Amino acid sequence: MIMLEQHQKTPFSERMDGIPKSFIRQILKATQQPNMISFAGGLPNATKFPLEALQHATTDVFQKYGGEVFQYAITEGFFPLRQWISDRYNRKYGMKVTPEEILITSGSQQGMDLIGKLFLNKGDHIVMERPGYLGAIQTFSIFQPDISTVSITEDGANLMELSSRLNERAAKFFYTVPNFQNPSGVSYSQKKRARLASLLKMNDCWLIEDDPYNELRYSGSDLPPIKVQMGEKGILLGSFSKTIAPSLRIGWIVAVPTVIDQLRILKQASDLHTNEFGQRLLYEYLLKNDFDEHLSLLKNDYHRKLKCMLQALGKYFPANTRYYEPEGGMFIWCALPKTMDAYRLLEEAMKQQVIFVPGDVFFQQKHNTHYLRLNFTNSSLSEIDKGIKILGRLIKQGSG
Amino acid sequence: MIMLEQHQKTPFSERMDGIPKSFIRQILKATQQPNMISFAGGLPNATKFPLEALQHATTDVFQKYGGEVFQYAITEGFFPLRQWISDRYNRKYGMKVTPEEILITSGSQQGMDLIGKLFLNKGDHIVMERPGYLGAIQTFSIFQPDISTVSITEDGANLMELSSRLNERAAKFFYTVPNFQNPSGVSYSQKKRARLASLLKMNDCWLIEDDPYNELRYSGSDLPPIKVQMGEKGILLGSFSKTIAPSLRIGWIVAVPTVIDQLRILKQASDLHTNEFGQRLLYEYLLKNDFDEHLSLLKNDYHRKLKCMLQALGKYFPANTRYYEPEGGMFIWCALPKTMDAYRLLEEAMKQQVIFVPGDVFFQQKHNTHYLRLNFTNSSLSEIDKGIKILGRLIKQGSG
Repeated sequence: MIMLEQHQKTPFSERMDGIPKSFIRQILKATQQPNMISFAGGLPNATKFPLEALQHATTDVFQKYGGEVFQYAITEGFFPLRQWISDRYNRKYGMKVTPEEILITSGSQQGMDLIGKLFLNKGDHIVMERPGYLGAIQTFSIFQPDISTVSITEDGANLMELSSRLNERAAKFFYTVPNFQNPSGVSYSQKKRARLASLLKMNDCWLIEDDPYNELRYSGSDLPPIKVQMGEKGILLGSFSKTIAPSLRIGWIVAVPTVIDQLRILKQASDLHTNEFGQRLLYEYLLKNDFDEHLSLLKNDYHRKLKCMLQALGKYFPANTRYYEPEGGMFIWCALPKTMDAYRLLEEAMKQQVIFVPGDVFFQQKHNTHYLRLNFTNSSLSEIDKGIKILGRLIKQGSG
Repeated sequence: MIMLEQHQKTPFSERMDGIPKSFIRQILKATQQPNMISFAGGLPNATKFPLEALQHATTDVFQKYGGEVFQYAITEGFFPLRQWISDRYNRKYGMKVTPEEILITSGSQQGMDLIGKLFLNKGDHIVMERPGYLGAIQTFSIFQPDISTVSITEDGANLMELSSRLNERAAKFFYTVPNFQNPSGVSYSQKKRARLASLLKMNDCWLIEDDPYNELRYSGSDLPPIKVQMGEKGILLGSFSKTIAPSLRIGWIVAVPTVIDQLRILKQASDLHTNEFGQRLLYEYLLKNDFDEHLSLLKNDYHRKLKCMLQALGKYFPANTRYYEPEGGMFIWCALPKTMDAYRLLEEAMKQQVIFVPGDVFFQQKHNTHYLRLNFTNSSLSEIDKGIKILGRLIKQGSG
């Protein structure tokens, strides 16, 4: 009888069995405790949101548009905002993006949902990075693809492995976070970008380039999106969530018009359009303020925090821990000695009011338990020093 | 060679073949011409948005929450807003909904996407109304179900047909718009609600109750959601799009916690959370204003427009056209003599700056071409009179 109950048929779809749980969510209550030092989330620092300028922009939106701003709007998104986004790509990278090649999405998370819907039949092969962004794994899993992975090296994905995966079986697409990858912090070198694009093109494989951290570079040199080298088989995702305000849920997809047209049909069926008040609010903000000046303040702050955390890691962590020094983004990826277990460390750390994300949630196979992902953007300098000191002591005591 | 090109393999998923196009979208440019009298869209009247009160609420949001309102937020939605929604159901209908049984969605359109993801394997049987809401047909089509339909009678779905459909083959769910259905305007009677619920329960079939027009009743008596009689197998969708402001894209799903929990996982993978600024803006508006007073002004206006359109139909349309007099909502459903064709009528009408939606887009089988759907909320009284007069003249001239 117990057996029967355990195997009771649910009315739900098969896809529900394959979606990995969000670890962040499971420790959400802990992250919200007031004295907790959290290196766990992927949150920008709320004290750095351009609050006053956004409030002015809100007033402008009411004055400029009146009731129209609350009416149903077109699925593609607010045209001037799409123009602004394409202009920025063109100015920064000499690209030739038109507003017609931009679809505004409800955060770039929705971009992935739409891409999953557009490309994936059940059982289709796709390739992702290992470790890789958990949110992408979750979203694509809904469409029941066969996911294979390639490891990340210091300058991007291991292309030998990727070549093998693609030889074994044609893939619909390769998904990458090319700048300051979540969780590893790795950025693709110029050389690797070129080699990746030619490998994918040779194999008739699309590129899904998820680039939310692009504007958060603190050192090294800015590189054009890999999409530039991919032609029509490159799809690029961007977002205002890491630079201005995540809660507005405004991201975008860049693709050729024939692809945008298909994505638009899917977007319409998914939520009709992205919230228009937020789009016009963002656009008014961008129109009246110097975005690069805002970015520069934000990057100075985050860079200081990154350096502070690297320093603290050098000072407090044992010599046999390794960590990658990212040139931007929000995370430091850290490897404990292989005998240690990040879950055991987390358990002890939470007792002392420090949390982080154990690295194995970023792998498809869950047995790389000696990694940690540490977020440095959402804590103060003193919290970073204090929190890393506590973790270091626990690791030295063998609590991992 | 031409044959080969026509059947060229696309890289896209099979589901792309099955999604019906939006007719509204195809005539979007026409609807946006300044002198066009549009009975085509399903738009609330932008002059009736509570603009000043929303602007005050925006100021309050900045003062009350500061930067926090722009940070990532929880997937379920803003708790006080969920509390407000559940309180209203409980007060209006004596229900016992808790905030934990509410998931805020990016419009109720997203609610349908999440329900499709939760329930539908390819080939699963679902039943819908005929005619029915095109947006629902589009969204569910993405998950490749077998859709069968039952006709709409004066007091709701034809339950004899529904019983046959369910006998032929078990269905995952029955989808209905119970109040002032889009496009027919029909509302389910109390008796039909009870009979529908017992038929579905007997057949172990879930109810998806899409209720965006619930608050827009101009005559007759308000009836509790059918969900009340369905227990855990009833899922109810609601929205602020028809009552306050569609562009904010804020709707909700009501379901038992075990279902909400599954939908939340899917929502997280779809767009992380609904835009939080909009949620708190709405909540502040609801807190500081009398929603029922606003509704009463809105309903007076829409009721006047409905009566005006009914009067004009009586005056200008030939005696052999039939139309349903709805007790609320936004649409009048109109049948021309069967020999006429609404597309031919539309072609002539557009030359005279009047548009509407030909009714056959609301059918799965596209050959009921003598129906029109007429929206009355988004035009002025004089536009309604003028536009219906033009249509009436064209019909009498045999232009349909």
